[in-house]
Amino acid sequence: MSLSLQGVFAALTTPLTGDTIAAEKWRDNIRRYNRTGLSGYVVLGSTGEAVFLSDKESETLVAEAKAAAAARKKIIVGTSREATHLTIQFTNKMAGLGADAALIKPPHYYKSLMSPDVVRSYYLEVAEKSKIPVLVYHIPQNTGIPMDSATIIALSRHPNIAGIKDSSGLLGNLVDVGPAVRSDFRFLLGAGSIFLAGLLLGASGGILALAAAVPELCVSVYSLFREGKLEEARKLQLDLGPLNKALTQTMGIPALKYALDLLGYYGGPPRPPLLPLPENEKATIKEMLAKLGLPAS
Amino acid sequence: MSLSLQGVFAALTTPLTGDTIAAEKWRDNIRRYNRTGLSGYVVLGSTGEAVFLSDKESETLVAEAKAAAAARKKIIVGTSREATHLTIQFTNKMAGLGADAALIKPPHYYKSLMSPDVVRSYYLEVAEKSKIPVLVYHIPQNTGIPMDSATIIALSRHPNIAGIKDSSGLLGNLVDVGPAVRSDFRFLLGAGSIFLAGLLLGASGGILALAAAVPELCVSVYSLFREGKLEEARKLQLDLGPLNKALTQTMGIPALKYALDLLGYYGGPPRPPLLPLPENEKATIKEMLAKLGLPAS
Amino acid sequence: MSLSLQGVFAALTTPLTGDTIAAEKWRDNIRRYNRTGLSGYVVLGSTGEAVFLSDKESETLVAEAKAAAAARKKIIVGTSREATHLTIQFTNKMAGLGADAALIKPPHYYKSLMSPDVVRSYYLEVAEKSKIPVLVYHIPQNTGIPMDSATIIALSRHPNIAGIKDSSGLLGNLVDVGPAVRSDFRFLLGAGSIFLAGLLLGASGGILALAAAVPELCVSVYSLFREGKLEEARKLQLDLGPLNKALTQTMGIPALKYALDLLGYYGGPPRPPLLPLPENEKATIKEMLAKLGLPAS
Amino acid sequence: MSLSLQGVFAALTTPLTGDTIAAEKWRDNIRRYNRTGLSGYVVLGSTGEAVFLSDKESETLVAEAKAAAAARKKIIVGTSREATHLTIQFTNKMAGLGADAALIKPPHYYKSLMSPDVVRSYYLEVAEKSKIPVLVYHIPQNTGIPMDSATIIALSRHPNIAGIKDSSGLLGNLVDVGPAVRSDFRFLLGAGSIFLAGLLLGASGGILALAAAVPELCVSVYSLFREGKLEEARKLQLDLGPLNKALTQTMGIPALKYALDLLGYYGGPPRPPLLPLPENEKATIKEMLAKLGLPAS
Repeated sequence: MSLSLQGVFAALTTPLTGDTIAAEKWRDNIRRYNRTGLSGYVVLGSTGEAVFLSDKESETLVAEAKAAAAARKKIIVGTSREATHLTIQFTNKMAGLGADAALIKPPHYYKSLMSPDVVRSYYLEVAEKSKIPVLVYHIPQNTGIPMDSATIIALSRHPNIAGIKDSSGLLGNLVDVGPAVRSDFRFLLGAGSIFLAGLLLGASGGILALAAAVPELCVSVYSLFREGKLEEARKLQLDLGPLNKALTQTMGIPALKYALDLLGYYGGPPRPPLLPLPENEKATIKEMLAKLGLPAS
Repeated sequence: MSLSLQGVFAALTTPLTGDTIAAEKWRDNIRRYNRTGLSGYVVLGSTGEAVFLSDKESETLVAEAKAAAAARKKIIVGTSREATHLTIQFTNKMAGLGADAALIKPPHYYKSLMSPDVVRSYYLEVAEKSKIPVLVYHIPQNTGIPMDSATIIALSRHPNIAGIKDSSGLLGNLVDVGPAVRSDFRFLLGAGSIFLAGLLLGASGGILALAAAVPELCVSVYSLFREGKLEEARKLQLDLGPLNKALTQTMGIPALKYALDLLGYYGGPPRPPLLPLPENEKATIKEMLAKLGLPAS
Repeated sequence: MSLSLQGVFAALTTPLTGDTIAAEKWRDNIRRYNRTGLSGYVVLGSTGEAVFLSDKESETLVAEAKAAAAARKKIIVGTSREATHLTIQFTNKMAGLGADAALIKPPHYYKSLMSPDVVRSYYLEVAEKSKIPVLVYHIPQNTGIPMDSATIIALSRHPNIAGIKDSSGLLGNLVDVGPAVRSDFRFLLGAGSIFLAGLLLGASGGILALAAAVPELCVSVYSLFREGKLEEARKLQLDLGPLNKALTQTMGIPALKYALDLLGYYGGPPRPPLLPLPENEKATIKEMLAKLGLPAS
Repeated sequence: MSLSLQGVFAALTTPLTGDTIAAEKWRDNIRRYNRTGLSGYVVLGSTGEAVFLSDKESETLVAEAKAAAAARKKIIVGTSREATHLTIQFTNKMAGLGADAALIKPPHYYKSLMSPDVVRSYYLEVAEKSKIPVLVYHIPQNTGIPMDSATIIALSRHPNIAGIKDSSGLLGNLVDVGPAVRSDFRFLLGAGSIFLAGLLLGASGGILALAAAVPELCVSVYSLFREGKLEEARKLQLDLGPLNKALTQTMGIPALKYALDLLGYYGGPPRPPLLPLPENEKATIKEMLAKLGLPAS
């Protein structure tokens, strides 16, 4: 597998005008991201409101992203469904549209039946039949399915499982699986606040919602770390803390979309049931961007 | 609203042969259920593996159920999607196929953003635009979204919200909302083990997976209670405890489907990632049915 | 074992004046409770702020309760400690002071190490060495240690384990253990809102914080049920719902103590870190008592 | 406040022979720790089975620790009780025996009543009346009380609150509070697996159970980091991962005590209900120590 999973990937938001996908805005955003140091993009991720999209909208987004993305930018697509066969079908359809890798959550509706064995079987079956490499997606705060290092190590043995995106906010799995997996199994951080800490412990990069708003700053954390400029990397990581927390935890997707609007990207409204950002929170986001010296319009 | 929501509704399983919906088996099962004292059926519920079905399969199941069901049997359909507009679309499509009511879970993927306010807005918007009455579905063990009595009371004020199915296993909400809601707002138990207890506290009936396997026994609990034969009702409720626990908690859908096969219905296999029932658990189910005096083949 | 565990037991609050135990108020309260139909009292329970008391204060409370209680009223004492040997020591010291039974939570500080096996060993060791019968105390919302029916059934086999107080709010364990335990193993409800439902399913009584405020009303629920006056029992149970919820969930011990003050008992202040009841919540409690027709001063 | 809280503190185990405190072993262990680069010791912590000790035993341990510890080694004592006044009393008693600082968990038995306001009031009251500096102890996996950065920042404003030990395994609080607290407010890691990551993000040190077993290796992680030898620090941190996980998560205190026995300290048995380490887990610990090149007897 020659898929390179290093550096910073931005988890992209889905641009809407009113009720519909704003395809032109989507291409514009991506063309602008093409000029950054990002390694690639995640389409149909948690940040992309994937659970609010129809299959047809999902296909459009991936096809357009492939068309607009620079050749060297990888396209990782969130393709999970609850049923094994539906996940495989959708993954391979996305592969046909140009996805470079599939980011896949464990099934999680029937929580009490999702034993580690069932989760493992699911991933192995999907990996076996997927035409593109699979990234395991660990996000227990949304799925209610925690995955421990033993499961991850077992999954890493399948040649078509390329790595894991871990959004748990915990680094224990990274420490635990690091020495036990093959050298090209990649650990990507999903929690922006501990990105640098994860790099230090051996992660190869991150898939960050924060990078949709401030791609260059996220890439700088990565580059400074690689260049050994640890003190500068740390300062930047800590400076990014409040914005990351607002965009990914306390205020979430509506705030991220609002920040994009301020930063020259198209953000637009979230889909209901998500509510637009209240005015007082808009002011907070503006202040945070100003503190980071960003020329927000 | 003239929808009657009293008595026992069976949460139906979805019959498969291999990978595909077994439409004939589905009709056969329903025709057999028509001869019982059930008040109606839930199609596309948690028990029906709804999250494993394509939209097309879902439509087939509802249309066929409507065709096969006796006129007096109500058809309640699980129609929730994460996005508000997709829920409304799907609900009204199902209404067009003959659904009498929609059973709707709260959106739950973005758990940290699903505040009581967001959940309430979602239901009110859906209820406003749904062509059929809406039943709120409280199943926090699967969704991670608990709903308290204040939310339920607020929702009960909308004329198109007909009631709640509560599968939490807790009776606190029933006690709390009972006196505070309009007289035709219905509380339906979703947890078979406390069905009788719920009736005693004012529930009008139940939507039970257990009733897919042993409809007449569930109906008997209800009838005995209504006739004031409390001692007999209690004995039967307690006798049903072990089977209910196995079919809905410890072993789940694969066990329920196996029990159906033994009892003359068509159960068939679950869909992956759910695994077929292991042999030792099959033996347990057989014993449980024998203890209940059921002529399992 | 001839310990009778039937009817309603009040979980008593601990009266304080300023920082110290108000021993006289304690005796006065108990003498007044003696005139009710309560079956007995729980001293040093969760309601009694046991975790805020020194060992010496605890001893005083038990000795005084024994002296003040009518002979036919059972004294159940909360005696759990985290360490096995400390639980045994304290239990037997309380036995020496006149406790009729010990109410014992599972150890819960080291949650990840408290496997069902460890919990079972703990109870069997304590039961073996306790001079008085042991009641298992299931209160997972405080301990974080849920206990399933298999554990309870295993514990019921020890002759010195007299029963269980279940405050989980769930009735599943009652249904599951009912037929599987010896006939004199008692199931006592700890959640006032489902007291009647529990009686219906085979519970022998309840240990209720609500009964510290309105003992006669709680006893009436029990008596009406025993006399087969189900409709009246249900009405009373539902009428008690809001008060029970306020005193045991939303407002807790400070509200219960305030209600006692209104009802002619001595309530007094809670111990810090618990805070006194805010004025607006006091008004709510007053209204609730008025609605129940109680002559609150 | 001149309390220095930098470097590595070992969370000490409590040595027992049979049922009783082995005071001589305790002094021997401490004298041996005196020869390491540890900054100090935590007595009566979670690792020290504090919840299993009588007050008298607790006093003995602190007094003996003070007597045996080298002058430059700080003694931090776990002094929390559920009641505010009992915490203050015990803290000041420990101060009188020579404790340099108090490590204090939030009250947690009445979880539903422990709002952020109540927790804050508790700490401020304790800090006000404590004769020694207070360290907030964040260990939600045991207490069920998570504390967010806003609470920690508010507490940091009290001059007698010296810092926080965070055992949550999360680094979000460290990132969030870092820039918002006074420069001498210390953040100490409690999770050994992310010690180095925490140092990178601004923590001043750690309080580690792992450091009771391998103090010099933990001190090396700290020193290598301070010297800028990041690659070596990382390698050592990752090498320590499996042992740390076994001693603090999967096997816990019994395993840590066993490791001490192998490494020339006195470990001895845990107190019931904790069970002695099974033979197969003993073998695992031996292998882990061997892999680290440690001369285990």
